Amino acid sequence: MNYEAFFQVELDALKEDGRYRIFAELERKAGSFPRARHYAEDGVGDVTVWCSNDYLGMGQHRKVLDAMHTTLDACGAGAGGTRNISGTTHAHVVLEAELADLHGKEAALLFTSGYVSNWAALGTLAARMPNCVVLSDELNHASMIEGIRHSRAECLRFKHSDPADLDRKLAQIDPARPKLVAFESVYSMDGDIAPIAEILDVCEKHGAMSYLDEVHGVGLYGPRGGGVAEERGLMDRITVIEGTLGKAFGVMGGYIAASAALCDFVRSFASGFIFTTALPPALAAGATASIRHLKASGWERAQHQARVAQVRRRLDAIGIPTIDNPSHIIPVMVGDAKKCKMISDWLLEEHGIYVQPINYPTVPVGTERLRLTPSPVHTDGDVDKLVDALSEIWSQCALARRAMAA
Amino acid sequence: MNYEAFFQVELDALKEDGRYRIFAELERKAGSFPRARHYAEDGVGDVTVWCSNDYLGMGQHRKVLDAMHTTLDACGAGAGGTRNISGTTHAHVVLEAELADLHGKEAALLFTSGYVSNWAALGTLAARMPNCVVLSDELNHASMIEGIRHSRAECLRFKHSDPADLDRKLAQIDPARPKLVAFESVYSMDGDIAPIAEILDVCEKHGAMSYLDEVHGVGLYGPRGGGVAEERGLMDRITVIEGTLGKAFGVMGGYIAASAALCDFVRSFASGFIFTTALPPALAAGATASIRHLKASGWERAQHQARVAQVRRRLDAIGIPTIDNPSHIIPVMVGDAKKCKMISDWLLEEHGIYVQPINYPTVPVGTERLRLTPSPVHTDGDVDKLVDALSEIWSQCALARRAMAA
Repeated sequence: MNYEAFFQVELDALKEDGRYRIFAELERKAGSFPRARHYAEDGVGDVTVWCSNDYLGMGQHRKVLDAMHTTLDACGAGAGGTRNISGTTHAHVVLEAELADLHGKEAALLFTSGYVSNWAALGTLAARMPNCVVLSDELNHASMIEGIRHSRAECLRFKHSDPADLDRKLAQIDPARPKLVAFESVYSMDGDIAPIAEILDVCEKHGAMSYLDEVHGVGLYGPRGGGVAEERGLMDRITVIEGTLGKAFGVMGGYIAASAALCDFVRSFASGFIFTTALPPALAAGATASIRHLKASGWERAQHQARVAQVRRRLDAIGIPTIDNPSHIIPVMVGDAKKCKMISDWLLEEHGIYVQPINYPTVPVGTERLRLTPSPVHTDGDVDKLVDALSEIWSQCALARRAMAA
Repeated sequence: MNYEAFFQVELDALKEDGRYRIFAELERKAGSFPRARHYAEDGVGDVTVWCSNDYLGMGQHRKVLDAMHTTLDACGAGAGGTRNISGTTHAHVVLEAELADLHGKEAALLFTSGYVSNWAALGTLAARMPNCVVLSDELNHASMIEGIRHSRAECLRFKHSDPADLDRKLAQIDPARPKLVAFESVYSMDGDIAPIAEILDVCEKHGAMSYLDEVHGVGLYGPRGGGVAEERGLMDRITVIEGTLGKAFGVMGGYIAASAALCDFVRSFASGFIFTTALPPALAAGATASIRHLKASGWERAQHQARVAQVRRRLDAIGIPTIDNPSHIIPVMVGDAKKCKMISDWLLEEHGIYVQPINYPTVPVGTERLRLTPSPVHTDGDVDKLVDALSEIWSQCALARRAMAA
């Protein structure tokens, strides 16, 4: 076996397909984000980022940075151990209490990332509940799929955001078996939002646990930023709410919020929680500051929604094809991997606009797109530039527009 | 199914067995570590930490903190996206180059933790190489086991640190199959060190890839802190070196260092790398500063080894039973979960000494222990106090001592 040759052949195949990922090397400018420096082969230039998941710009918020500086000086860089072996600090305990409060749950449990929280929590619950069956929305995120797969529990996929299909599938399962229904609030690539209440109705009818991934909802929706479930008054009906500290909250880390017994159970049995170094205390403190700010302030959420509506309106007016959805994510549809990459390169090189092309396997082949995430820190001028650039390239490349708005 | 009742029963069983983990809530004091504040039910007290994996105290090193402060101000809190979608920053690229250089490899690839690096890299390599068989040391860390399990590749466990057993097992495998041998340099609970050269001899004889987990070696061994493999001049014979930024380097994160094609392959196919928010740039900058310092300075490593030798000598002199090993980890053997917890509580409450009890499943039943990690930041006074306290409790509780040193 020639290992090197094997890797090279596989990489060449990706390149052939236009699926090879090239990472843009950036340097965010705190204080003037979405501005960033871009390191290219031919030098360093300035760009405006239009595809960040720091949705509200909290990653540069003074309160967040101050909390991180203070804790860095007080406690040092890393946690120095797993949660069990010297790695639980006061900052973690405070953050977990803050998260439990955010979601109106008895407890919360921190993980090193949203990916790990899904993988470890779903993996542990599904593996440890005897004869558990998992019902998984067919468009769930990779981290949920991998966690369920890891559990080796039986898994049935239900049609995307289809409570009737979920109902049919649950009806066929022995009522005595533990059942776990896993779904998301905001699906990050299409930006659609699940019919959470209807899915919960079905869960309750069949005595199933509900597990809601709110990573693209927390901080952004609900009067205190508790997510879409808070906005819709549904948090108390959900067994497990999973979220991230790395998107709207602007830092890093993931968590679940649930009953005290459930969190303690995952804490006690999840390999991906137990055997890993805890988050640095400064990250925990920064996340706490961010959550507290967004619990009290609705300004960022209002500005965010206004900016999203503005961009959507402007793109509609010139017929740039987007997926219509009720969320803050604007997918501009291209439908071809190479064209998508070409447009992205051109925006970057000619206009200083950075939007990463989203290709397979992140989205299905034929639905390649530019995923725009307008934020409160984008200006009217930024929007003008973006819209003009997209209009120009759509004309130059004779890309299909949809029927213009009246 | 009554989910809450199920969780409670499982938790009660853990408590019954003495295996229920209670986390000590600390607040490290940067600048005076291993001193920390301890939050207990009855108030806050001062403790000396004797079980941290911040082995060299780099988590409070001025260069590390300065780099983190600077980058926090320049770039903000989080990375704001996955590595592919706006989350690759200059700080990540610089760190990956630093890590490749540290291990003399063409490339390196960052992950959010050491756990994720093992899980994702082993999981991807073993799953994607057609018909791959993994040879795994029977005492490998949970993160390696879970990665291999996740790959669903065939896995054969070889006897711990036994090249002859590995040789026999490899000899029975079709020479044409891809083979991946996964092992660690320093095993963290017993502190023993693998016969790396002999294992590599066997790998080379059979055309197997070698994957060495150096998380308890990097920063601590070798003239530039490249780990045990560097100390023994073996880095160039190892296919993949895996390490962490969260122990001796004092920050957080994990990585692999290997050929450019291998790193690119894992980068392109590992779900746990692709679909997760990148490390905050400030953490990357802190880790880079730490690695650079330890590449140039041998002082911390020399002091570390001297402190370990001193503690070992003192414990031997009064017959406290430890596992003899060539590393920096001193396991004080108790052999009973409840006694181990009791000694730990007593050290904390009566002496302000914090050593977490290590019980099953982290170590086998009957080998419960206190795992001491002396560091350059412990003083002679700290050592005196620790040794006196252990001597006192060993006498009071009539715990077995071993034959005294002459």
